[in-house]
Amino acid sequence: MISVHPPSGFRDFLNQEAKRRLFLMNQISHVYQSFGFLPLETPVVENLDLLMGGGGGEENEKLIFKILKRGEKLAEALPSGDENRIAEFGLRFDLTLPLSRVVALHRGKIQMPWKVFHIGPVWRAERAQKGRYREFIQCDVDIVGAKGLGAEIEVIQAAAFALQSVGASGFELRVNDRRLIQAMAEKFGFTGPKVEQFAVIMDKKDKVEISVLLEQLREALGESLPSDVQPVLEGQLTLDQAVEFHAEAGNDLRTLVSTLQSLHLPLTGIVFDPSLVRGMGYYTGPVFELRHASAGYSFGGGGRYDRLIGRWSGQEVPACGISIGFERLVLLLAELEKESQSDSPILFLPVFDESLRPRICALAAELRGLGLSVDVFPDSGKIKNQFRFASEQGYRWVLVAGENEWSSGIFKLKDFKSGVEIDVQSEDLKDHLLKVFSQSKKF
Amino acid sequence: MISVHPPSGFRDFLNQEAKRRLFLMNQISHVYQSFGFLPLETPVVENLDLLMGGGGGEENEKLIFKILKRGEKLAEALPSGDENRIAEFGLRFDLTLPLSRVVALHRGKIQMPWKVFHIGPVWRAERAQKGRYREFIQCDVDIVGAKGLGAEIEVIQAAAFALQSVGASGFELRVNDRRLIQAMAEKFGFTGPKVEQFAVIMDKKDKVEISVLLEQLREALGESLPSDVQPVLEGQLTLDQAVEFHAEAGNDLRTLVSTLQSLHLPLTGIVFDPSLVRGMGYYTGPVFELRHASAGYSFGGGGRYDRLIGRWSGQEVPACGISIGFERLVLLLAELEKESQSDSPILFLPVFDESLRPRICALAAELRGLGLSVDVFPDSGKIKNQFRFASEQGYRWVLVAGENEWSSGIFKLKDFKSGVEIDVQSEDLKDHLLKVFSQSKKF
Repeated sequence: MISVHPPSGFRDFLNQEAKRRLFLMNQISHVYQSFGFLPLETPVVENLDLLMGGGGGEENEKLIFKILKRGEKLAEALPSGDENRIAEFGLRFDLTLPLSRVVALHRGKIQMPWKVFHIGPVWRAERAQKGRYREFIQCDVDIVGAKGLGAEIEVIQAAAFALQSVGASGFELRVNDRRLIQAMAEKFGFTGPKVEQFAVIMDKKDKVEISVLLEQLREALGESLPSDVQPVLEGQLTLDQAVEFHAEAGNDLRTLVSTLQSLHLPLTGIVFDPSLVRGMGYYTGPVFELRHASAGYSFGGGGRYDRLIGRWSGQEVPACGISIGFERLVLLLAELEKESQSDSPILFLPVFDESLRPRICALAAELRGLGLSVDVFPDSGKIKNQFRFASEQGYRWVLVAGENEWSSGIFKLKDFKSGVEIDVQSEDLKDHLLKVFSQSKKF
Repeated sequence: MISVHPPSGFRDFLNQEAKRRLFLMNQISHVYQSFGFLPLETPVVENLDLLMGGGGGEENEKLIFKILKRGEKLAEALPSGDENRIAEFGLRFDLTLPLSRVVALHRGKIQMPWKVFHIGPVWRAERAQKGRYREFIQCDVDIVGAKGLGAEIEVIQAAAFALQSVGASGFELRVNDRRLIQAMAEKFGFTGPKVEQFAVIMDKKDKVEISVLLEQLREALGESLPSDVQPVLEGQLTLDQAVEFHAEAGNDLRTLVSTLQSLHLPLTGIVFDPSLVRGMGYYTGPVFELRHASAGYSFGGGGRYDRLIGRWSGQEVPACGISIGFERLVLLLAELEKESQSDSPILFLPVFDESLRPRICALAAELRGLGLSVDVFPDSGKIKNQFRFASEQGYRWVLVAGENEWSSGIFKLKDFKSGVEIDVQSEDLKDHLLKVFSQSKKF
């Protein structure tokens, strides 16, 4: 017996859930385009040697779904029993690696600074468990080839407006700088490989108690900690103090925070957080993260990564970007019951008799020409069943256009919400529906 | 040396090309939603046993990209040397198989008739060659659970308006019915397995000369052909004659053609073509195909397939659908130079001095609030370079807002197309830009 379930860790989306996802993707992409960002579309598969040697972090490399060679190439490789020889491609585990590859390959087609966004699924063969999926959407927006803070400001502004456009509010932005973390670590006595340890322990701040982190830092250092570590972990460092640790990073943070504050972005606040690390090892300058008041986790973030994009292009290319956590945003919106935002009203047209279908389909086309969404019942069936269909579909408006209505020129418009049915003269129909629909969008 | 090319047969899309693709996807999805079709999103991978046993046609099964098992499961399977045991998932080769699986699995969440559309990539491990790709987008729109011709009319109407919405015109619809093909084959003496042969030979009509096809049919039949075969191949059968071959199919075709004609769809014609087969073996009733005057190939098509969806749901579920050939449509639009359709104008704001960036970013946000697209230059750089950037980017409008302009309250708007630069008072700026942009959309 063949199972009709999707593979473990993979999901089907239909009806309202699929609508919400499509709405989110469209809104984010629309806002990014309104900033002049250009879309990027790359294959879901990459050559395996590229994925494995991409510096995407050993963690990610372990999680690659690998795709078999074919035909003779497979037959030759099979006896080796080596999965990296019998496989040839892999599903991408992020969108940053394809971006780097594209910059290296298409350098001649790209005008720098390149403002680019990339929305699409990525795959990681994590152990499937509740809330953790093996296929999920990432929404990256990046500026490649710009060194100045203008790039950070642009991607943050774009992400803030993208979040606003989907009806999500209550996000706070936290900012820090990797150069500052490095300088603090060194000042505290973490040198060489211990800098990385310092960053890794700091990065756990939202999941682990500060007293535990202090103990871990002390162990890593091998001696008692300087007294100014605790205020950093508690986020109590000021920007003035940051400048003392690292003048350039501190001043950049000051400019970044003050410029973003002056823009009155749709965010609840812009906060300097000296303990913010943002996992990935490739960041080289400012890092930032979006948090929501009602959730204890990040809804996205990013930073400057000046030494990553150039890994295959043979020359260093500055870059900075931000990624919105699409799957978390979908869940948040579902909780906030923002369906109404994604759900523009649809007029339902039942078909009482097949002989009326041509006229009803033509009427539907005319109404769609006005910008209305119109669903014509595609099958034959009892009126009672068609009304039940409309009601279960969550439609509010039904236009009754049976034989009597066509001959009298008076249609009936039923409002399922109020239960009221009114007569509309055929010549007033368009104006009336436009009025009713423009109002019902506000519900 | 690691190659930065995508795997053979796979493509990167950037800049204008990516914009055109995104525009097409959004338009098609927008039109389908305006008909009340609901989106569907399924994983790119399916369990391998489902893909292999899905009745998707042996041809497609050979072309599955297979994904390796992992860890212990892989170690156990490797010694077998059997690719179907060492692999666990496969990339989907069409969107019809996932649709059938979803109907079987989520039956309780689906209200019939289910109007559904599914836009996404599929993968086939074809030998890579010019114009043939291993990853390509399909756009399917289907009605599941409706028996009547209303479903055919609805999907055809939706597809016709989707094509119109992207600025493509000149499409003709050809219709036929599989029951008619069966009846004709039997009447001509093709019985049992020869019916299939008859259909396969007919299906080559657009690629092979009629005299060659007649010879092939004669060979398949094993005797000389009845004289009424040639008119069928030449498309000269009338609907009245079709009714004689198969009353129900002929009458359905008559209703379908006359209803579609009465709707004045944005198509150049609706034509009965008795030689139309539409490859896939699963069609059971009407079949249809969209052709463009300037191209010798199909831009999509579909039909009724009442016995496919039910393959895993345990009960027969009627269905009919149409698929738009996305990749061909992208090429056609590029040829028709319809870029202007997908390319709404963008205002470019250079940044002359970093100290002006906060004001310029705030102004950009205000203008975007009016619905305009605005690109702020994200880096520092010489004015000359920023102007060159704007011109190479193909931007027409540049707003000069330097120190002088801010202090005088008079901005300069430069039109790269005419070369004219005019002064605009800051209080008139919004109105002026709205006027200019609403006009330049029509270019």
